[in-house]
Amino acid sequence: MFENKSKSSIESLGEFKLIHHLTDSFETNQKNTVVGIGDDAAVLDSGEYFTLVTNDLLIEGVHFDFSYSPFKHLGYKAVAVNVSDIVAMNGVATQILVSVGLSSKISLEAIEEFYMGVKAACEKYNIDLVGGDTSSSRSGMFVSVTAIGKVQKDKLVRRKGAKVGDLVCVSGDLGAAYTGYQLLEREKRIFLENPSVQPDLEGNDYILQRQLKPEARVDIVEILDEINVLPTAMIDISDGLSSELFHLAEHSEVGFRIYEDKLPIDPTAFQTARDLGLDPTICALNGGEDYELLFTVSQLDYDKIKSNLDITVVGYCTEKIEGVQMVSRNENLYPLEAQGWTSFKG
Amino acid sequence: MFENKSKSSIESLGEFKLIHHLTDSFETNQKNTVVGIGDDAAVLDSGEYFTLVTNDLLIEGVHFDFSYSPFKHLGYKAVAVNVSDIVAMNGVATQILVSVGLSSKISLEAIEEFYMGVKAACEKYNIDLVGGDTSSSRSGMFVSVTAIGKVQKDKLVRRKGAKVGDLVCVSGDLGAAYTGYQLLEREKRIFLENPSVQPDLEGNDYILQRQLKPEARVDIVEILDEINVLPTAMIDISDGLSSELFHLAEHSEVGFRIYEDKLPIDPTAFQTARDLGLDPTICALNGGEDYELLFTVSQLDYDKIKSNLDITVVGYCTEKIEGVQMVSRNENLYPLEAQGWTSFKG
Repeated sequence: MFENKSKSSIESLGEFKLIHHLTDSFETNQKNTVVGIGDDAAVLDSGEYFTLVTNDLLIEGVHFDFSYSPFKHLGYKAVAVNVSDIVAMNGVATQILVSVGLSSKISLEAIEEFYMGVKAACEKYNIDLVGGDTSSSRSGMFVSVTAIGKVQKDKLVRRKGAKVGDLVCVSGDLGAAYTGYQLLEREKRIFLENPSVQPDLEGNDYILQRQLKPEARVDIVEILDEINVLPTAMIDISDGLSSELFHLAEHSEVGFRIYEDKLPIDPTAFQTARDLGLDPTICALNGGEDYELLFTVSQLDYDKIKSNLDITVVGYCTEKIEGVQMVSRNENLYPLEAQGWTSFKG
Repeated sequence: MFENKSKSSIESLGEFKLIHHLTDSFETNQKNTVVGIGDDAAVLDSGEYFTLVTNDLLIEGVHFDFSYSPFKHLGYKAVAVNVSDIVAMNGVATQILVSVGLSSKISLEAIEEFYMGVKAACEKYNIDLVGGDTSSSRSGMFVSVTAIGKVQKDKLVRRKGAKVGDLVCVSGDLGAAYTGYQLLEREKRIFLENPSVQPDLEGNDYILQRQLKPEARVDIVEILDEINVLPTAMIDISDGLSSELFHLAEHSEVGFRIYEDKLPIDPTAFQTARDLGLDPTICALNGGEDYELLFTVSQLDYDKIKSNLDITVVGYCTEKIEGVQMVSRNENLYPLEAQGWTSFKG
């Protein structure tokens, strides 16, 4: 009943342009809709505060692989990545709904493990599981999580709001989740070729944990509140620093200049990238799944954040016309790309 | 990494017991969580009113079949069935988030059609699309919709609250969606056996529409409000009247006695069921997907509802110990079953 003649059109559009293309003609009419599609979460006016709502999908074979992703970790991660979207609006997550599609291959013990992970994350982030749906799936497992949160009206931070001259900050470190993923993929290939070989993952706990059990940076939002710094714009790093910089640039109508030598890269991630023949900078820029926060602050706030070891200033906001650029270690200026870094390496 | 030794355990538990089994140990700690898992929607305290949140999955090969379900209808239905859950709490839907997993078989035109259906439903129900996620899927399409709504605090209606002696009411008619589904399945089989035969669907617009493009009964909630009737308990009929009666019975701790000759069955649905060799009563009891409302009202409200052609009193609430029973046309009393009707036919 349908043909795939336009399959290539979907692929060429990419996820973000596809959503924009499909939802561009929708209007919002409810008076309590403050922010609709296009930020980390929707924002609804609940009188005394704003309610935040977000939904993300995790799909077997696309976002996770049961060859190395334990069910409990998957449950935890499904919650954490949605909490991260609430955090990216400077909010506090309060409730989640978890829906799962289950293939017939999945055992009751496996799904129990999954919910143990969901529960561990609910306890960690102090959120209530309040709903969801469970259904059989023809093939593969998938998870749909809706997270609900709240934020004081004067504390909402969006993707728009960054001003020329603002400092660009990143929490934690970047690239570890991607190098962890590459390591797991390598061991999976070795295992498939020779099942008697045991995986060699020793000493890589940190980067494996970053891939399999990421955390939402609730602590960063709390710290910023304590030191009285309200970011001018913010987004969580799910698709890689480069891609998220482009989102902030588009929404805030600014450019960015970041410095390669400022990028926070964990030593294990750096060495593993090198061992795997990858450029650590590319892993940090495009790896994704770090779920760190990328935010901009006024230069006036520099003294308040400079001593915090978990926040790194990686650059500053420029005029929109300058685009998103990186100053390399050898002090050349390269344009970044949202989906890759090809021009930089060319 | 996982085995399917307990596959049968999941199947034997069934969807409702599975969710209960998996989430039983979860606690709610947020002070604005009013109702968590177990009703048609979660209820959150938003100060002046209650916020309602619900999430449902629709999965290709389980909930829909592209052999006969047009993409536009699917988009409409995905929204309508979630609005129906908000309506079942006596609420008004205000926003939705729509997430889709797309297999590589699906064309851009098809997904555009799907969103046209979503848009038509948003306009029909006056709700804003405020978010969602789009991802590739390894096989098949699935849809996850989160609906958000609100209800005045003194107007919330739950699954619990029905009292012995209350009247049991059903909106609209029952069984049409299921007979529509059976008709489409028959024509699909004939088409697969002989592709030159054109489907014979003439004169069946109503029951086909009930299956392919159901509506949420927003109008019933409005009417009840106008005539000043607050149901004592309510649920929407997604899995069949029988199954929903058991949910109300469990939550309200009552029994039910309903009358076969009172069941509202559309004449086309009745005749089609007969033509297909099905018992129309079974279609009405167990067919499901009618998305009508099942609710209980005080006997004192009978005069207010008796003249409404779209509301049928089908029985009354009994003591819990009597269970869920039906008085047949020949005036015998049979116990109903949640998932089927085998004992009645035995």
